[in-house]
Amino acid sequence: MSSSHERNAPKRGFKPRPHGRPDRPSEKASEDWLWGLHAVEAALVNPARTPEILYLTADRAKTLSGRFKTLPTHEIVDNNRFAQLLPASAVHQGIALKAPLLEPADLTDFVAEPGAVLLMLDQVTDPQNVGAILRSAAAFGAKGLVLQDRHAPQFTGTVAKAAAGAVERVPTARVVNLSRALEELSEAGWRTIGLAGEAQDSLADSLDGSAVVIVLGSEGEGLRRLVAEHCDTLAKIPMPGGFESLNVSAAAAVALYETSQTRRRA
Amino acid sequence: MSSSHERNAPKRGFKPRPHGRPDRPSEKASEDWLWGLHAVEAALVNPARTPEILYLTADRAKTLSGRFKTLPTHEIVDNNRFAQLLPASAVHQGIALKAPLLEPADLTDFVAEPGAVLLMLDQVTDPQNVGAILRSAAAFGAKGLVLQDRHAPQFTGTVAKAAAGAVERVPTARVVNLSRALEELSEAGWRTIGLAGEAQDSLADSLDGSAVVIVLGSEGEGLRRLVAEHCDTLAKIPMPGGFESLNVSAAAAVALYETSQTRRRA
Repeated sequence: MSSSHERNAPKRGFKPRPHGRPDRPSEKASEDWLWGLHAVEAALVNPARTPEILYLTADRAKTLSGRFKTLPTHEIVDNNRFAQLLPASAVHQGIALKAPLLEPADLTDFVAEPGAVLLMLDQVTDPQNVGAILRSAAAFGAKGLVLQDRHAPQFTGTVAKAAAGAVERVPTARVVNLSRALEELSEAGWRTIGLAGEAQDSLADSLDGSAVVIVLGSEGEGLRRLVAEHCDTLAKIPMPGGFESLNVSAAAAVALYETSQTRRRA
Repeated sequence: MSSSHERNAPKRGFKPRPHGRPDRPSEKASEDWLWGLHAVEAALVNPARTPEILYLTADRAKTLSGRFKTLPTHEIVDNNRFAQLLPASAVHQGIALKAPLLEPADLTDFVAEPGAVLLMLDQVTDPQNVGAILRSAAAFGAKGLVLQDRHAPQFTGTVAKAAAGAVERVPTARVVNLSRALEELSEAGWRTIGLAGEAQDSLADSLDGSAVVIVLGSEGEGLRRLVAEHCDTLAKIPMPGGFESLNVSAAAAVALYETSQTRRRA
């Protein structure tokens, strides 16, 4: 059996990407940017980060000086400069950081100890949802996230803003194939539970204190067939209101909360 | 003691608003519009709705004809017409409905029977969050929502799109003053629980099967002091990850889930 590393080989996205790639269309590409106060502050205190340059307004520099004795290479700019640097939709709060992507985790980094929880996202792409899921993962103590690299946004820009600093705290593996990743995690001792509305058992009844991977599908489609088939079991979040529809980040929060309550009761 | 109706008098927002108000700046104001497939479909089957006009693309009309034998007054249009009618950000999916706002609920409509849950939002304004909260409220069987009319978006446009049909299912009272509403609900037999990170007790431990109002504050600020003081008790969602930050719609989903699990166990 080959190792996780060999099977989900780091073709792309597994190492910090160099800046100034020839294929980048313009300076506005948001892949290497973090913006927003919580997102940038958390990056600045993360020793794993190697900031390239920090842009901030004079006002923001003042509010930051109480919290940071030294800042990395930075430039005081006005809002016009942010408009040049960042997408129009960026809620930057007067602060933006250019920094290489964090190094992704490897599946073998995750240790299947009792009560440990991983979250796997199958084609969840909306940046607000992914950011909110990162926050919930950090809040409820998930050990990490597993994503399919090709169908997941980078944890910069809008994702990082919505994550409010949680990007720095949740180790994330970006794999080529989710079904293979489920096989590998299963062999490594993780129990894999796919969330599906049509499942018989509730998530609460399906948790038994062992290390679990909770797998969530996209909003419209749910889990893809092959991914669902690679789960040890399927479970549902009971929705007694008769309206079988939760936002995917709401479902993730509920699932993570339930795992933390199960740990607590154990 | 005056009635809820008198104290939170319907100055505005308590009745369907007439169309063509002189203060409406342009046809693009989104107050009377629903768009997106789930939002509009749910409105079309809601007998409380009185649709004014339905706009849809020819393709959408085809997909809809299998589900609806008759449609209200409608017009087949192309995407350019949607661009004229709706905000640029509207994810309309080829369908939009102009209809008066639903009639809000009155606080006295909510019956404090055992296990009943109301959600109160204190200055939660982000339309995506409010929409996601409506979905969770419908999914977990909340009896209704209470909002401060002045600080809450209307349940149309982006809110209704994010709610994916739940706008039609969750009775919502829009009051002038949340503290007074809490007093009135309290007198009517509801136990009022404010969610606050600094609280001693967990929400799970605070629930006792009685009818509860769960009060959520805005993301940055939390509950306003006066609103918190009017709650019978404060409770927290335990976050063992050490990252004390949940998206407000994630917090609402977790709180509603916990109340539904408490009901289930009882």
